[in-house]
Amino acid sequence: MMIYLDNAATTFPKPEAVYQAVDQCMRGFGANPGRSGHKMALDAGRAIYKTRELLCRLFNIDNPMQVIFTSNATDSLNLALKGVLKAGDHVITTSMEHNSMIRPIMSLKEIGVEHTVVQCSETGELDPEKIRAAIQQNTKLIAMTHASNITGTLMPVAKVGKIAKEKGVLLLVDAAQTAGIYAIDVEEMQIDLLAAPGHKGLMGPQGTGILYIRDGIELRHMKEGGTGSKSESLLQPEIIPDRYESGTPNTPGIAGLGAGIEFILSTGLDNIRKHEEDLTAHMLSELKKIQGIKIYGPQDHTKQAAVISINIGEEDSSEVSYVLDKVFEVAVRSGLHCAPLAHQTIGTFEQGTVRFSIGYFNTREDIDKAIEALKKICEELVV
Amino acid sequence: MMIYLDNAATTFPKPEAVYQAVDQCMRGFGANPGRSGHKMALDAGRAIYKTRELLCRLFNIDNPMQVIFTSNATDSLNLALKGVLKAGDHVITTSMEHNSMIRPIMSLKEIGVEHTVVQCSETGELDPEKIRAAIQQNTKLIAMTHASNITGTLMPVAKVGKIAKEKGVLLLVDAAQTAGIYAIDVEEMQIDLLAAPGHKGLMGPQGTGILYIRDGIELRHMKEGGTGSKSESLLQPEIIPDRYESGTPNTPGIAGLGAGIEFILSTGLDNIRKHEEDLTAHMLSELKKIQGIKIYGPQDHTKQAAVISINIGEEDSSEVSYVLDKVFEVAVRSGLHCAPLAHQTIGTFEQGTVRFSIGYFNTREDIDKAIEALKKICEELVV
Repeated sequence: MMIYLDNAATTFPKPEAVYQAVDQCMRGFGANPGRSGHKMALDAGRAIYKTRELLCRLFNIDNPMQVIFTSNATDSLNLALKGVLKAGDHVITTSMEHNSMIRPIMSLKEIGVEHTVVQCSETGELDPEKIRAAIQQNTKLIAMTHASNITGTLMPVAKVGKIAKEKGVLLLVDAAQTAGIYAIDVEEMQIDLLAAPGHKGLMGPQGTGILYIRDGIELRHMKEGGTGSKSESLLQPEIIPDRYESGTPNTPGIAGLGAGIEFILSTGLDNIRKHEEDLTAHMLSELKKIQGIKIYGPQDHTKQAAVISINIGEEDSSEVSYVLDKVFEVAVRSGLHCAPLAHQTIGTFEQGTVRFSIGYFNTREDIDKAIEALKKICEELVV
Repeated sequence: MMIYLDNAATTFPKPEAVYQAVDQCMRGFGANPGRSGHKMALDAGRAIYKTRELLCRLFNIDNPMQVIFTSNATDSLNLALKGVLKAGDHVITTSMEHNSMIRPIMSLKEIGVEHTVVQCSETGELDPEKIRAAIQQNTKLIAMTHASNITGTLMPVAKVGKIAKEKGVLLLVDAAQTAGIYAIDVEEMQIDLLAAPGHKGLMGPQGTGILYIRDGIELRHMKEGGTGSKSESLLQPEIIPDRYESGTPNTPGIAGLGAGIEFILSTGLDNIRKHEEDLTAHMLSELKKIQGIKIYGPQDHTKQAAVISINIGEEDSSEVSYVLDKVFEVAVRSGLHCAPLAHQTIGTFEQGTVRFSIGYFNTREDIDKAIEALKKICEELVV
């Protein structure tokens, strides 16, 4: 039986209710929502609206119409960044970002958007005062992750939110590693734009993502098309969420996402986080006992999400993950994890890291087996 | 039991194998494809590659890497149009297009892209010579549908393809109403860019779309992010399909789409089309017998896809579809169907139409029941 420790890429398994919601949607009311007026189409529309409402409960969002469905977090981040930033604007980001944040920012350079990358520490930690110091007259946006996908390092989003508010700058948060696990309150944390994948901590199917857009923020739309609204017009309608949601949505995926969020709300976010924290603490403590293993990041379960990056001596990270998979049936991810700047920050740009990412369905036994495997690999390498 | 005649919006039901493929993917190998190297991730990657290959077989495409997965046909059309057209370019389209074509073209006007809308006849038919006549020095692209989503009218794509080739202009085809039903050969028809939804004739789940890009055509990418390739680079990689496919794909959806195409290939495209043509011919012939019904489009099953638009006298189209749904359990779509220009072309911009769209799983009995319902509605209205 494969031990899946690649939950930072996508969570697996999903709650049984998610599989069932997808199947029931496709079989029972697989019509096009918001297009036609017949019963099946209305049922499909209701399933989508219900997921919007559940997201509102989870993130303390007022109006379900401010939740936009996208195809993944990358899609959400592109819409947020390109929707907000214009030539002459300045954006601040961090050195721990994923390429889904960095690459759109680099492409915006071509149209004259400036950026500053604030350097984080070697454990991936961010000093919020460095963000304050980077704010310029033309700073429009601070765009940052909530937790690193390499080291799990949790970022001081609420503190940055205060600074952003004080300075009249917008805050975009990439919650790819935290949504569904850590408490995110867009009001308390003063988040203006919140991007998240549906298929990680939110436990929905792949092919789903969300973007929360604070009331009053108008983004340039990235694509135009049929919205089922204002059909008489050749121009993209202004009303939300239609303005940003052209074409047929991923109805079964969104229905499944709704079931995932219901699972989170009924299980309790605190219980989910506690479970992941316990396993992270356990794994960190066991890892520290193995000679030859270098652990990156804060090495403290209160300062990091359930993501642990390591290396064994100078061993190629891909080689280690290959052996974990082939010999020990432990699924992890190695290499740069689409986050080259973060690897530069922690000093692993050449070697990459072997990343263990823990999910709610992992057990203490899974961690013990992974630790046993690592011990054996280390012994082999020492011999 | 609801009679579903809204297949132009999305096909329903899907083949059993599609539901199963989605479920098996989520439960069996629900990892992130192309990101990690472990077995489950490789299985996910293989499922996606297999669907690319199946699409190649269906459309006579050489290289599976030239098939891009998107979230729907609107996404595909936006990528194609905005990827190709730059300030100063000219694009030709038709008056029968869906808003997924027209709205992006209108938005490109803002950055200085010119367009010409070639007028079609009142039955939605296009004279290819009008396309030739519209070609200017700066014409870069002809962008047109393969069949109208209002009247089903089939467009002379192959003839336009010849003209395009002759004149050195690119051809983008929107196959939303034809892919999976009509033979589409990108070589024979000289199609450079082919956009299609996965969830209509291709019988896959919602949340899927495709764009074929002919070898040698380089599009501006619409979004950047993690691709699992060239992770060391802060810039979007150049290699296809990664260049256009950032972020986690809809793996279960794409696996389901693969099962849908396998169903089409094993059933036979000709058999699928023949069945839909037969039902269309039958419905048209029965409709013609009902007094008070006005039929739009060619009224000839050899000249139209399985889409039939009608009106009853001056009756509001939404009212008719409402009664069909509530009283007779017949699901259709009314209104403008996101295609205002097409309704202007056929003279129904005010009234809209009641659209019956037939799928492979409809039966002669379904058509007869719909006809019976329409007869009763007409009698009521006459009384």
